[in-house]
Order: sequence, then structure tokens, then C-alpha cells
Amino acid sequence: MRVGILNVTGYAGAETVRILMRHPEVKITSVTGRSAAGQKLGEVFPHLAGLDLTIEPELGDVDFVISALPHKASAEAVAPLVERGLRVVDISADFRLKSPQVYEEWYETPHPAPGLLEEAVYGLTELHRKEVASARVVANPGCYPTGIILAVFPALKEGIIDGQLIADAKSGVSGAGRSLSLFTHFSEVNENVQAYGLKGHRHLPEIIQELEPVAGNNLAVTFVPHLIPMTRGILATCYAPLKQDLGDPATANRRLRELYLDYYGHEPFVKVVPAPPQTKHTLGNNDCLIYPCVDHRANRLIVVSCLDNLVKGAAGQAVQNMNVMLGLPETMGLEQTALYP
Amino acid sequence: MRVGILNVTGYAGAETVRILMRHPEVKITSVTGRSAAGQKLGEVFPHLAGLDLTIEPELGDVDFVISALPHKASAEAVAPLVERGLRVVDISADFRLKSPQVYEEWYETPHPAPGLLEEAVYGLTELHRKEVASARVVANPGCYPTGIILAVFPALKEGIIDGQLIADAKSGVSGAGRSLSLFTHFSEVNENVQAYGLKGHRHLPEIIQELEPVAGNNLAVTFVPHLIPMTRGILATCYAPLKQDLGDPATANRRLRELYLDYYGHEPFVKVVPAPPQTKHTLGNNDCLIYPCVDHRANRLIVVSCLDNLVKGAAGQAVQNMNVMLGLPETMGLEQTALYP
Amino acid sequence: MRVGILNVTGYAGAETVRILMRHPEVKITSVTGRSAAGQKLGEVFPHLAGLDLTIEPELGDVDFVISALPHKASAEAVAPLVERGLRVVDISADFRLKSPQVYEEWYETPHPAPGLLEEAVYGLTELHRKEVASARVVANPGCYPTGIILAVFPALKEGIIDGQLIADAKSGVSGAGRSLSLFTHFSEVNENVQAYGLKGHRHLPEIIQELEPVAGNNLAVTFVPHLIPMTRGILATCYAPLKQDLGDPATANRRLRELYLDYYGHEPFVKVVPAPPQTKHTLGNNDCLIYPCVDHRANRLIVVSCLDNLVKGAAGQAVQNMNVMLGLPETMGLEQTALYP
Amino acid sequence: MRVGILNVTGYAGAETVRILMRHPEVKITSVTGRSAAGQKLGEVFPHLAGLDLTIEPELGDVDFVISALPHKASAEAVAPLVERGLRVVDISADFRLKSPQVYEEWYETPHPAPGLLEEAVYGLTELHRKEVASARVVANPGCYPTGIILAVFPALKEGIIDGQLIADAKSGVSGAGRSLSLFTHFSEVNENVQAYGLKGHRHLPEIIQELEPVAGNNLAVTFVPHLIPMTRGILATCYAPLKQDLGDPATANRRLRELYLDYYGHEPFVKVVPAPPQTKHTLGNNDCLIYPCVDHRANRLIVVSCLDNLVKGAAGQAVQNMNVMLGLPETMGLEQTALYP
Repeated sequence: MRVGILNVTGYAGAETVRILMRHPEVKITSVTGRSAAGQKLGEVFPHLAGLDLTIEPELGDVDFVISALPHKASAEAVAPLVERGLRVVDISADFRLKSPQVYEEWYETPHPAPGLLEEAVYGLTELHRKEVASARVVANPGCYPTGIILAVFPALKEGIIDGQLIADAKSGVSGAGRSLSLFTHFSEVNENVQAYGLKGHRHLPEIIQELEPVAGNNLAVTFVPHLIPMTRGILATCYAPLKQDLGDPATANRRLRELYLDYYGHEPFVKVVPAPPQTKHTLGNNDCLIYPCVDHRANRLIVVSCLDNLVKGAAGQAVQNMNVMLGLPETMGLEQTALYP
Repeated sequence: MRVGILNVTGYAGAETVRILMRHPEVKITSVTGRSAAGQKLGEVFPHLAGLDLTIEPELGDVDFVISALPHKASAEAVAPLVERGLRVVDISADFRLKSPQVYEEWYETPHPAPGLLEEAVYGLTELHRKEVASARVVANPGCYPTGIILAVFPALKEGIIDGQLIADAKSGVSGAGRSLSLFTHFSEVNENVQAYGLKGHRHLPEIIQELEPVAGNNLAVTFVPHLIPMTRGILATCYAPLKQDLGDPATANRRLRELYLDYYGHEPFVKVVPAPPQTKHTLGNNDCLIYPCVDHRANRLIVVSCLDNLVKGAAGQAVQNMNVMLGLPETMGLEQTALYP
Repeated sequence: MRVGILNVTGYAGAETVRILMRHPEVKITSVTGRSAAGQKLGEVFPHLAGLDLTIEPELGDVDFVISALPHKASAEAVAPLVERGLRVVDISADFRLKSPQVYEEWYETPHPAPGLLEEAVYGLTELHRKEVASARVVANPGCYPTGIILAVFPALKEGIIDGQLIADAKSGVSGAGRSLSLFTHFSEVNENVQAYGLKGHRHLPEIIQELEPVAGNNLAVTFVPHLIPMTRGILATCYAPLKQDLGDPATANRRLRELYLDYYGHEPFVKVVPAPPQTKHTLGNNDCLIYPCVDHRANRLIVVSCLDNLVKGAAGQAVQNMNVMLGLPETMGLEQTALYP
Repeated sequence: MRVGILNVTGYAGAETVRILMRHPEVKITSVTGRSAAGQKLGEVFPHLAGLDLTIEPELGDVDFVISALPHKASAEAVAPLVERGLRVVDISADFRLKSPQVYEEWYETPHPAPGLLEEAVYGLTELHRKEVASARVVANPGCYPTGIILAVFPALKEGIIDGQLIADAKSGVSGAGRSLSLFTHFSEVNENVQAYGLKGHRHLPEIIQELEPVAGNNLAVTFVPHLIPMTRGILATCYAPLKQDLGDPATANRRLRELYLDYYGHEPFVKVVPAPPQTKHTLGNNDCLIYPCVDHRANRLIVVSCLDNLVKGAAGQAVQNMNVMLGLPETMGLEQTALYP
């Protein structure tokens, strides 16, 4: 199976290469990139020098495509490929939102390929595995929504909480990509922390779109991301009032753990952990760790989740979706143990 | 005015020295420390070598005391000093909680000097300036409560929100002190983030004690601290449902800013800022920066505050309280500009 | 092949598990650790929870041993195992130095098993592959010596330089292990850099022992390690006067590169790179990157090398040696791509 | 005394403001900046909001100028100011090198104001205090040369070493300024270290120019800077063969310390320290810490120096020079204690 990667020169693209280099059933045969076209992959990314490929301006002959282009550019590139019969996982935001109006509201540009929106599948694999399997276009979820949706879905579905949800997320800097800005300039980020996106972050409509069918009208999500001085990793702390009395703290926490294990106990990449998780325990791998507990004093649910934003939050989940689409074992090429410390 | 510092060998003690070294009206004449007794201050802390003092096992002859001892040890050392007529700012937690029962519940030891609790003043200077001025013992607030209480007090007092409060705080590592633990071991903290204290952090009862008189029975505070890979700084993001309609987002944010300026516009160290604050903008100084805004989609108030946990969160606020107690200008010795970048 | 790991609870031990978990030909069947004996491996190291093993006080029945014990304890534990017929890679320093007197001078304790010193092989695999293959005890090199010896060996061997060598190394903190000390306390290391070991670092005699046979009497090595605020990685910058005129800078650099490629061009883990290397390009993998060049103004050779101190500098090289000892492909289990960014 | 700052929008400019805000004898009355002209200083740098100034396109009416412009632009702006009778400290490289040919060779542009080169004084204050006092134009030294020259000057002057010098420097990222590049992009720098400038760094000719008069023909300096993941601070480790036998290590180190104290014992900002220094001990202040010692095994001198690149390496030394030029106490406004931890 020959796989092509669109825009290999960003972090998500390079990370997709890192993962697929060790994938036993696919072979990367074409990688594109505008500014770096003509250069060897190993010149731009020395850690990928083991793969002898030249960055091309246009995609070569491939059987499957993973797009790591920025939004808008991605849909523009993907649409004709799908027409030619190729199946695609799109890491950009372009096919995540069902409504072209909502897309335009948040991304401030008309959707470049609205005709594909209906059939595109939101590729949070654990929730949409069946639809992913047969999709032509899978929209890989945003890094924040992946952790947040997985964290609250079971509690919401079971009616433990209604949708009065606060999601406070802390992210490393690589999620902002390889493009330069003062926001990601070392001297500005190091030894610093800040909230951003307080007027509304583009990942909010994804979260709402996925949770609304479960929560109904009652959904009110506040999502505030924070930038912290590390490269990889997102930790999301989610808060919601408890609707049910789950008993004393020990009982409540045990019941919550069991409930979450019912949902995720058989998932290869979602792990309900017995202690508050740390992003370092997911460094470089495709796990999402989830820890639900109660604040019995204030009668609230707290769910902490974490993942590596470039793996489960981007390239890893893209490969997971690709595996599902191709009928391969879902974990193929994704068995890496986290790099600790 | 001769000032003595108890337990100079921790970060709060050393930071108190750093600040007082440049204070024009006081002179540090005695510093204590058990394990390092007999050593020159500059041997333990090369950056303080400019002050020619030897660390003593017991406090020498002084006019005013700042205690940077750990809890329990602090009250045990402070009580006899107060009896001898000395006035004290205690950076430890020992005199913060009015109720010895609550103290014992959270600190798992009977209070060593319950007789002093009634007269001790909770030294969040901006809220208790008058009582601080005449106090014999001032309990310097915890680093987290300082930022959180200042962040929500005006909104709570004005009835913009009731007490359904979530405070998600992100802290640098120096707040955990100079004592060794795996929790503060570089390789474990670097490139990592985690929530902790999920069963209840000791700073919670302080927050409740201060906010309850304002919020009444309706108070339900969830407080979750996080450890992030930086040395200094705390950023607290506080969330609460809005009780009032404050208008469209622009109007609401303007009204909030005005309301907060009413409370803090004349404060030298609390600054209502026009954009989300960053801890780096308080590095090394005594400021607490506060940014209130609305999440109009979910009808919630969000208040972000930040400060340097060793300055406004510890040694700086101790000096601020000392200044007030001694009738000196409140800002004396505390005018330092933040170290950016 | 059943492999046992002595002292799994330090970073080198845990990293050995991480690597061997994916090794297709061996199975970890026993891991030891004193303080954590009786705990599940996944309780101590959540990232290793996929391996269902309990930490034991004593080694179980195994076919091969990797020791990650500290020096002295390691030789004491390894000697009886070797007598029982087991082959061992020892990550500690105990079998690196041929002379028990030199060992005692640097480690301040008599050697616990001097009888094994003669047969033990210094496991810098690239230089001693043949001896490693048949050894009973392989002494895994120190993290600093691995990078420094590989960096200067070809130039020294070819007589480009004599032994007037300065090796200035910059290391992440994980090399200092998981034991607690102020030296590795986050708040002391972060946003800081310092030289240490100026009176002589224990890795110096290893470097001398390996280079002396090549350089002869002329060897004079100054080695200064530095601690920098990162977790993994060592970069060594080596300087020596050029003995030969290598031509104009471009020619000289080309000739150096060719000379180094003669030595390492066929090595799977030593890569002569075309631009100054970065530790991030080795993060989590077993590579040692080497960049030789001239300072034509001062007529000196500069060689920069880098590696991940826990992989090629410890656990990875241990597995590489194990592979050689067992007649397995040398790269087996070690093909991981570096984690960038 | 009204002081103007050219190009306040870089780190050196902003740091000059931070220091001068607390200077008792001067008042910043004009600050310039191209892209940010028209904005309030506090909009660009919230930590400087206490100073109510608008960034101007052109310098207003001032009595003294500190230029933080980039090279070339700085000389072009400074030359007409000097003609108008203003005295200037130039933080850029433009007036550091006496020879316009050497300038052109290293900066790849003809010198914009060669007529001022002869009178300009190299402002390493400790070595050229007298000339600085009467200069019209003082060239503030580069951050690397400041630490390196101060480190080796006494040993070279006393003939302890000749000029066979290796200077291996480790720098935080802020020295590369506020301009964006992949080299200073957080995700590329964090958890990483690299050597750069191996073909020759622009600070080398400064070092040579200052040391040549002392060392004579024998000077051969190899200078390799490294980028490490911290914001502020430079640590330089300097190596040279010892020409004299200084006795056993203890004696040698004592003699070296005495020799260095002879040179720097009375300097307010250069401190000969009794243990290897750490950059954290200079964070935010104007100190240069120096530690000389011998490697008795290899008969070499090692001198470690460190400083804050934005203070003693830029803005602080600029103010120090300004003080000397204005006949003010040299330490005025520069008494800040380092921010530790």
C-alpha cells in the first residue's frame, strides 16, 4: 500500500512520516511541500534521513493519502483526490464540521468543498469506528477535542452529568505548528504560562458538534486552552456538576472508574488510569489517558485526560484511522511505548 | 528597624532576603536555619553573598520577625516571640485558618498555638489592610488563594456570580519549596504537566474562609492545582455561571473591567489588565494581574489572574504586610519591574 | 530468551524495559528493585504498565542479565551470576576500568570483583564488537565516554590530531538518575547552566583507558561536563590542535568527513552528519551523530557528537551489546526513529 | 538627564527601559521603534506599562542616547546624533571593531560611519573605564566577548597562559533577540542543545581585538557558542595550556584565585567566586561571575564565567557605561540582586 503525505514539512506531516516509517503494511512513496520542494526529506528533518525521499511540489502516484495541509488548502487539495478515487485522512480542520455555515463562521472563509461534508466522517476512532471503516474522507479530530470528548463522553452518555461543562486545557507548543510567531518564540514561552482563545477557540464547535447529540439542549461548554512551556502534550481538566449522588468519595470514584472501563476497557489506546495522569506518560505514543473522579465537597465530576498532541492528537490518530479504513489491525505501527522520562 | 527571618534556607526565606536587602527602612540582622546553621548566607545562596550574615540556630535580637518556617514549626516558634512583644508576619499556613478544628482536619496535627488564632489577621493585604495595620500576627496567604481570591472577590461581592466556582490553577515548581521529592525532580517535571491535590488541596479551606462571608451558603468551590514545567509563577483560571445579563460580549467585558477597576484601580499591586495576562509579566515582582471576561456562549464569567508565587504569593506580600504593620509606604522595597523575557 | 533486569527502578533500568518490550527475540521475565519490591512495574512506571510484571527483591530464573544497579552494588550482584554461567551486560561503571587501583582511586571503594576485570569487555560496541560477541561480562560505557570516544577516535587513530584533547560536554539531567538531590531539583536546574566535576569526573579514566592505546604517551584529556536544563541528551564538543595541514576549510572539512565515513559509514548507529547535530535528533533512539570540522583560523579540529544518554549512552547500547553477544542482528529492537520535535 | 532609547522593541531595548525605570538620576523621555511606532510602550511590553511613553518613529529631544538598533542601522542612526553633540552608548556591533575592513569581512557590509571608529571606545567597562569616561561613542561589547574576555584577561596578562585559547560558550535564547526564526522557535529549542557558528561567529574578532595586545602573536582563539534551552544567561568555559607550574592543585587554585582577586577584587560587578558559578546566580543583574581553576592532570587552566546576556551582556553594561560617561556612581541603578531560583 503506497501512502502519500501532503505537506510533510509541518510537525504533523513529519510525525506522520515518523510513525509510518515503522508501519509494516504501508510504504510512504510521495511527500509534498511547497517551500521545501526539491529538497531531500532528511535535509529538512535530519531525524527522518533514513527514508530516502525527495519532497515534491505535487503528490505522486499513491493508493492512500494523509493530508497535513493547513485548513482551506487541505480541502482544496483533497477534493480532487477523492474524485479520483483516493481515500483520505485529513488532519486539517476542513472536514470536521458538518455545517459549512459553522465552518465559515469559525474559519472566516467559505468552505472549499462543501459537497464532501456530508459523507466525511469525524475520525474520533473510538466513537465512530464503523463509519471510519467505510469512509472516503475521514476528518481527523483536533488535538484538544480528542482529549476533551473522550474525557466527558461516558459521563454525559450515562447521565452522570448534563452538559454544563468546563474544559480547561494545557497544551505544549508544538500544537501551534512550525510556523513562526511571537506566540511560539522560545523566549516568550519559556518560564511562562497564559490562557488564550478566550473569545472562542476554533476547536469549540467540534466539541459541541460531538457532544450535542448526547447532551441535548442542555449543553453549555466553556473551553479555555492554555500554552505551557513544553513541546508535546495536552492535559485537559474537565468539570461538570454531578446530577446523581454517587455515594461517598471512595464509592463514587470506584463507580466512575467502572463506568469508564465499560466504555474504554477494550480500547487499545484509551486507558482509564488509577491515578491522575501525566502527559509524559504519553510522550510519543498514541494513548489517551483518562482519570475520572469526584469533588465530593462541591458535588462535581472532574475528569483529567492527557495525550500527545502530535500522536493521538494528530498523526497517530490519522494512522489509527487509516488502519481502520484499510481493514488492518487498528494498532498496527502504533505500539510505541511512551518516552519517559 | 531590625528584621529577623526564621528559616532563611527555603525559597520563601531566601526570597524575603532578596527583597529586604534593597528595602530602605529595614535591616536584616538575624536569619535562622537548622541544617545550615553556622554557614554564611552566601555559602548557601551565592546570590545573597552581598549580605554578610551567618545563619544562626536561634533568632537574635530583632524588632520584627518574618517566619518562613514550615507549618507547625512556625506556630511553635512564633508564639513565644509574640508573647515577648514581637510582631510577626508568618508565611506558613499556621495562622490562616480561624478554626483550630479545620486546621487539624487539613494539616493532620493539633494547632500548636490556638490561642493566637483569633487575633491573627489573614494578610491578603488588599482585603484586610486595616486589620493588618494593627495586628501582632499576620498570616500571609497561600500562593494559590492570593491569586484566586483576588480574581473572584469583586464579581462575588457585586453579585455578578454566586459561589459556584471552579478555580483551575497552574503553578511553577518553586511553590513546592526546596525540599527534595520525586514530584519536583527535574526529569519528572520537565516536559510534563499534571493535576494534583484532587482529593482536596490544603489551600482550599483558606479560599472558602475568605469567600464564604461574601458568597453565603451558596459557595461551592472546586480548586484543582496543576504542576507545570517552570520555576516561578501561578496562573489561575476561574469559572462561574453569570447571574446577571451583562449585555453583548463587548459591553459585558467593558462593564466587568470597570467593575474590577472600581475595586483595584487604586491598588499598587493588583492590576486589571486589558489582555489575558502571562506569568512572565510578574516574574520577580509583587504584582497580581487580573483579567475578567465573559464566555457569552455559555454565559459564564472567566477571570484569569497571575502572580509570582514567591513574591506576591509569599515573600513580597509578607513585606507588603510588614510595611503596612510598620506604617511605612506599602510599596516600599517592592517597586521592582518584572523580569521579561 | 528470558532476560532479567537488575534494579529496574532507576531511569536506565526503566529505559531498558521500554526498549526490550518491543524486542522480537527476548522476553523480560524478571525485574528487581529493592525499595519497590512487591509493586507492579506499572505502579512505579505507568508508561510500562503494558508489561505485567511484579518487581522482585531477587532475580528469578533467566537466561541473560542486564544490570542497572549502581556501581559497587552491581559488581557484587553480577559476580555470582557470572559464576552460575549467566552472561551479563553491566550498565554500571564496575567493569569498565581494567585496573582495580584506578577503580578504587575514582570510586573510593575497593573493587568488589577484581577477578572478573580481566575478561570483562568495554562495550563501546563499534570499537570492540568482536570481543563483545564472546564476552561473559560486558561493561556498558558511560554516557559521556560513548560520545567523546566515538567523536575523536578516527582523528586520533589517523594521526590528524595527537592527544591534546579538550572535551566540553553538555548533558541533560536524566544522566544523574532518579535519586533525589538539590543538583537535580527542578527549581535549581531550570533556566540555569553550570559546569561540574572540575576536579575530575569519574568518566575521565574510561576515556583515557580507551584513547591511550591510540594516542600513546601524548594523551592529555581535559573533560568538563555541564548540566543544562533538559531531560535527555548529551552534546560533546571536542577540540584538539591539528597536526596536519588539511588544506583550505572546504577541502579540510570534506577530507574529515570522508575519513570519518571510512570509520563509521557502515555503522548502523553512528552517523557522520553533514551539519552540526542536535540532541533532539537522537531523542529516544540509539544513534550517535558526529560532525567533524576544522577551525582553520586557529588550526584546530572540532568534533561535535550527540546522543541520547539513556539510549546510546545506557540502555540502548546495553541492548546493542546484548544483541551482539547473542548473535542477533545488532539493530534488533533498536530501530526507533528519534522523537522530534 | 533625559535619555532616549533607539529601537526599544527588541529585548535589549526593553531591558534598558527596565533598568533605567529605577535609575535615580536619569529619565527616559523618548523611545523609538519602527513597526510599533504610535503604540504605547505598555501595549508592546505589559511589564513596562508603568512608564507612560509612546513609541516614536524618530528620537525626541534628549541629552543622552542608548542605541539598541541592529548593526548597520545603528551606526547610520548614531552618526548624525554624535555630530549634533549627543553622547551615545551603542549596544550594536557597529563601533566595536577598530578596522572597517574587519567589520566588512564579518558583517558583509561597508561600515556606515568609519570616521567615528577611531574615537569609539570598546566599552568593556572594567578594562577601559578611563576611555569610556570621556568618550562620545561607546561600543557596548557583545554578550559572549564580555564573559570570555573578563575570564581570560588576568591569566593572559600575567603570562600564566599564552593565547592558545578555547572558549566554549553556552547561551540562552534571548541573545538571539526577538526576531522570529526556526532557530529560536520554542519546539525546536526546548529539550535540545546544539553548537552553532562553527564557521566563525561574529563575536570572534572582538575577542581577538581585545586579547591580541595582551597575548601578542601567539593568539589562537577557538570560540564555539551553543544554544541551550533557557531564556537568559551565558556560561563560558575557557581552556588554555598552563605556561607555568602553579604547584599542587590546592596551591594552584589558591594562587589563581588571588591573582584574579588582584584584578577584580575591587570591581563592583565582576566577582571571583569560590565555587563553579551558575547563570541563575546572575539572573537579572549586572554581575559577571568568574571561577578560575587548574586541570592538574592535563596541566591546563580552566576559567568558567557567567552573566546575564541581557544585563551585563547588553543593557546593564550599557547603563554601567552611561554612568561612567556621566560621572555618576558606576553602580547607580544596577544594584539588583539576582532572581533565584
